[in-house]
Amino acid sequence: MSTAVIGVSGYTGGELLRLLINHSKTELVGVYGKKSAGKRLTELQPNLVGFEERTIKKPDYPEIGKNADVVFTATPHGIAMKFVPKILEGGAKVIDLSADYRLDDPKIYEKYYKKHESPELKAVYGLPELHRDEIKKAELVANPGCYPTAAVLSLAPLVKENMVKTDPIIIDAKSGTSGAGAKPSKMLHHPACAENIQAYSPTSHRHEPEIAQEIGKLVEDEVGIHFTPHLIPIVRGILSTSHVFMREPGAEEEVLDLYQKFYKNEIFVRVLKALPQVSSVVGSNLCDIGLKSDAKGERFVVISVIDNLIKGASGQAIQNMNLMFGFGEAEGLGEIPLSP
Amino acid sequence: MSTAVIGVSGYTGGELLRLLINHSKTELVGVYGKKSAGKRLTELQPNLVGFEERTIKKPDYPEIGKNADVVFTATPHGIAMKFVPKILEGGAKVIDLSADYRLDDPKIYEKYYKKHESPELKAVYGLPELHRDEIKKAELVANPGCYPTAAVLSLAPLVKENMVKTDPIIIDAKSGTSGAGAKPSKMLHHPACAENIQAYSPTSHRHEPEIAQEIGKLVEDEVGIHFTPHLIPIVRGILSTSHVFMREPGAEEEVLDLYQKFYKNEIFVRVLKALPQVSSVVGSNLCDIGLKSDAKGERFVVISVIDNLIKGASGQAIQNMNLMFGFGEAEGLGEIPLSP
Amino acid sequence: MSTAVIGVSGYTGGELLRLLINHSKTELVGVYGKKSAGKRLTELQPNLVGFEERTIKKPDYPEIGKNADVVFTATPHGIAMKFVPKILEGGAKVIDLSADYRLDDPKIYEKYYKKHESPELKAVYGLPELHRDEIKKAELVANPGCYPTAAVLSLAPLVKENMVKTDPIIIDAKSGTSGAGAKPSKMLHHPACAENIQAYSPTSHRHEPEIAQEIGKLVEDEVGIHFTPHLIPIVRGILSTSHVFMREPGAEEEVLDLYQKFYKNEIFVRVLKALPQVSSVVGSNLCDIGLKSDAKGERFVVISVIDNLIKGASGQAIQNMNLMFGFGEAEGLGEIPLSP
Amino acid sequence: MSTAVIGVSGYTGGELLRLLINHSKTELVGVYGKKSAGKRLTELQPNLVGFEERTIKKPDYPEIGKNADVVFTATPHGIAMKFVPKILEGGAKVIDLSADYRLDDPKIYEKYYKKHESPELKAVYGLPELHRDEIKKAELVANPGCYPTAAVLSLAPLVKENMVKTDPIIIDAKSGTSGAGAKPSKMLHHPACAENIQAYSPTSHRHEPEIAQEIGKLVEDEVGIHFTPHLIPIVRGILSTSHVFMREPGAEEEVLDLYQKFYKNEIFVRVLKALPQVSSVVGSNLCDIGLKSDAKGERFVVISVIDNLIKGASGQAIQNMNLMFGFGEAEGLGEIPLSP
Repeated sequence: MSTAVIGVSGYTGGELLRLLINHSKTELVGVYGKKSAGKRLTELQPNLVGFEERTIKKPDYPEIGKNADVVFTATPHGIAMKFVPKILEGGAKVIDLSADYRLDDPKIYEKYYKKHESPELKAVYGLPELHRDEIKKAELVANPGCYPTAAVLSLAPLVKENMVKTDPIIIDAKSGTSGAGAKPSKMLHHPACAENIQAYSPTSHRHEPEIAQEIGKLVEDEVGIHFTPHLIPIVRGILSTSHVFMREPGAEEEVLDLYQKFYKNEIFVRVLKALPQVSSVVGSNLCDIGLKSDAKGERFVVISVIDNLIKGASGQAIQNMNLMFGFGEAEGLGEIPLSP
Repeated sequence: MSTAVIGVSGYTGGELLRLLINHSKTELVGVYGKKSAGKRLTELQPNLVGFEERTIKKPDYPEIGKNADVVFTATPHGIAMKFVPKILEGGAKVIDLSADYRLDDPKIYEKYYKKHESPELKAVYGLPELHRDEIKKAELVANPGCYPTAAVLSLAPLVKENMVKTDPIIIDAKSGTSGAGAKPSKMLHHPACAENIQAYSPTSHRHEPEIAQEIGKLVEDEVGIHFTPHLIPIVRGILSTSHVFMREPGAEEEVLDLYQKFYKNEIFVRVLKALPQVSSVVGSNLCDIGLKSDAKGERFVVISVIDNLIKGASGQAIQNMNLMFGFGEAEGLGEIPLSP
Repeated sequence: MSTAVIGVSGYTGGELLRLLINHSKTELVGVYGKKSAGKRLTELQPNLVGFEERTIKKPDYPEIGKNADVVFTATPHGIAMKFVPKILEGGAKVIDLSADYRLDDPKIYEKYYKKHESPELKAVYGLPELHRDEIKKAELVANPGCYPTAAVLSLAPLVKENMVKTDPIIIDAKSGTSGAGAKPSKMLHHPACAENIQAYSPTSHRHEPEIAQEIGKLVEDEVGIHFTPHLIPIVRGILSTSHVFMREPGAEEEVLDLYQKFYKNEIFVRVLKALPQVSSVVGSNLCDIGLKSDAKGERFVVISVIDNLIKGASGQAIQNMNLMFGFGEAEGLGEIPLSP
Repeated sequence: MSTAVIGVSGYTGGELLRLLINHSKTELVGVYGKKSAGKRLTELQPNLVGFEERTIKKPDYPEIGKNADVVFTATPHGIAMKFVPKILEGGAKVIDLSADYRLDDPKIYEKYYKKHESPELKAVYGLPELHRDEIKKAELVANPGCYPTAAVLSLAPLVKENMVKTDPIIIDAKSGTSGAGAKPSKMLHHPACAENIQAYSPTSHRHEPEIAQEIGKLVEDEVGIHFTPHLIPIVRGILSTSHVFMREPGAEEEVLDLYQKFYKNEIFVRVLKALPQVSSVVGSNLCDIGLKSDAKGERFVVISVIDNLIKGASGQAIQNMNLMFGFGEAEGLGEIPLSP
């Protein structure tokens, strides 16, 4: 089965290639980039020296759509929406790692990003734990954002069982710096960033409507998601802390039991009796979840952790591909977390 | 004016000495410790080589109380309560950096710590921005915890003006590792901690009742404080994120204006138009505060940052001493934050 | 083919298991530890939850030697030498990850470690790039130290071709903190270690004679190795900087060419035209090497990097096992470096 | 006494201001910058909010030279040499923090930097521990580089007493990232830099001739300095490791004694019996030095540490100013290292 990757100068593109190279069922037909065309891939992704030495090509979208069975698009937001229709016409399936097809409502996309250029295209939201059957049949998958992956997985059981109030749900998330991308900036300059913690977009981050959309689907209603992300000086990893309030007081063990049942067939979700730590999932496609109630069982804190570049981006994209093409869901994703 | 420090092997004791050495109005009569008696101070605090070379002495509490005008106690929780009465009898004033006298209700102390051994002693809570007049007259000051300092300062204006609902108030805080003390442990072992984020005591941390007590005083009512701390791999600094809900929708500029007025005479509080960052206060006694409302003005996120060892511990203790003895409040606390 | 691991509470033991679980040719018969017997493995290695759930057993050495084809010993120095003879008697091959069999001369072992308890046992030094043929036939392999792996690989071509003076060779190495093990200590306490650099054992580190032994074999003479290690606040990775002086001035390109030829058949050594960086090998079994001459071609700086827990320990042990049992040398070691 | 600072957008400019604000004998007449003119200083140096709120002005060099008693130039290399003559004409003394006047020989400057535009101007090399008397009388002081400060102080006693061979002297140095400046770049991008170590300019760094010049002055001869710097993921601090070979074997205690005598009147040099650590000097103007010999007393490893922005730049500039104007040498430099 043949794959192509468009957008290979950033972190998610590099990570996709790292995973694809060791995927036993696929063959890479090409790596593409507009600005990076003509460069050797290893100039931009030096960890791949000796593993994948090809040169980046200028993308001819219809051609790529004809030659590949699946095309991954790892371009910045606002780019894929311009050319995904052309790829689909060629016959390939598309997994878009940008935000372009994540939001069902083009008006919300326009509010948080920009005017959509292919609003008629409908994608399946590629969170396998919630949308597995649709993903299997999808032509176009919108790979979820890193924060929404962590947040939605940590809330789904409680929300779906209607056990928590859906307003307010406060999600206070902490991300490593690789989540902000490969482009140097003042905010990510090591001396300014290393011994620092900062919040950003604390009330209007682009991932808030994405989380609200997916949580809303679970209750078929509007929900009050209040999302605040923070930048933390680690390279990889997200820890998402959800503060929720129960409709009726509940016992910690029962809620934990609910989570274990909800995820019992999931390969990539581990429900823990302890509090999850970022370091226990980095390097893998896993999402670890744990929780704690207050003394009265009224407030629950649910914590989830992922590797933002794997389960939060490229690993999840591979997982979606595996589903779309009938491979084992864990094919190429067997890496055990690095520790320490 | 003469000072003594009991408990000099930890980080707050070391930081106290660093600040006292450069304080122009005080003279150190002795450094004391039970286990560390007989050692040179610089064995435990090597940064002080050349600045303070004395030997640690075994404490004789009544004697210390006679010889010093003020005694700082930087011992672990549950220790100072045994000997503070003896020091006070000697005539010295006491500033206790442990939790022993922070909670007004001994039953709450017993629930979160252990049985109190001098519950009859009443201390003034040493947060100068809220209790300046009482501190000036106090014989015994309970120096606030690091998290409560950051959280209470960030919430006081909105709570005192009765503008926010007092339940739920969610405080999601992030601390550097120096807050956990100088004793090696698995949790603070560099390989396990450096590329990691973790929550701890997410619903029952000891600082929750302390925050609730101080926020409660502002409204003279019970409040619903929900506090979750996280350990972040930086050495110094706390960032406290408060998620609050307004009684009536409010405008961001008006609330900011309220904060600026509330703190306009405070030397150590800077109300910023930008979001505060830990790196802008480390090395100083400052607390920076900033805030952001959601689109409707219903939910506010208020963020505050401090250096946990200075404004969150030893610097605040010096500030309290300055008030108790009529020195300039900023005496010995003029350090500008290190940047970067 | 069946394997057993003795010593699974530390970082090299955990890393061995992480690699063995994904090794397609082997089956684990048991995990053993004296102090940790009776505990679940995942209590000590929480990243393995869901991958390997067995309980640690008390070791019966002759029995283990009978049941396993190869036994990995990942115990602290001075322990394996007590029981390796018993395992060998059972019939298993042994790969010892400690220092116990690395030094050919028991007197040197005694000087740097302690009195040897099985000095009659002779091991093959398990650096495949230099001793591949002997490793294939070995019953007992001494897996090299992390620093010697990086240093010897970076010097071998120049030394073997007799192009550099063998005294002085200055090796100034920098290691991440995982190299110091899983046991909490003052030196590795996060607040003390995170924003710090320190040298340790700058003239008498235990790896100096090990490096000298291996470099000496290449010239069949005594050599003047001067080795100084430093602790750096990263989790994984060693960068080894060798400062060497040429017998005759040489051109950089020629020396680089020599290195490329020397290692052209090696799967795990990449000779780079650029200067190697730790981040380009972490997560893999690779060793990257680069070099630079001064203007006159008299002094060369040769730099090598490895992941100390993989090529510097457990990955190299797997590589040795693959050679000893006729598997593909890269079996189970195909991981591409994580980046970033 | 009045001061001016030209170049206030970088780290050394910001650090100068931080120190000058708390210097009791000076008054700031202005802050200047070509590109940053018109901006508020606190936009670029947010830690100074509330301490120094003035606006950056476009520099009129002769005017500045008339109005200030001393002018600090903290511009990039190759800039100050254009305007320092004009400032001197105005009557002010100048302390240049760039490399422009550090090298006595304009040809060497040209080789390592660019063609010099005011080669006729001769400066005093501002390392007070070696050139105090000349500094007191200087009109123009060239403030030393960060690496040379650490390296020269660590070698001076052994070299001056003619106890070590002056070729080869290997200096392997490790610097925090603030040494590379405030401008974002790929090399300093947090995800690429945080869990990484890298060497740069390993045989031809610009500080090599500067170190050779100063070490050469001590023996009045050419010396073979071999300098290799490394970038380490900490914010502040340099650790310099010098590997030297004795003319005659020497005892460690005697050499240590030599160092203690050599520096016995120096306020900012601490000769330690232990190995120095970066964390023991950060935040101060101190240089800590320690050493270790090999078993035979033939090879010594001398280690020094400084805060690169203080003793390695702005603190040393203040120390030079104090000498030039007859203030106490430690005036404004009393900060005790932050620990942890």
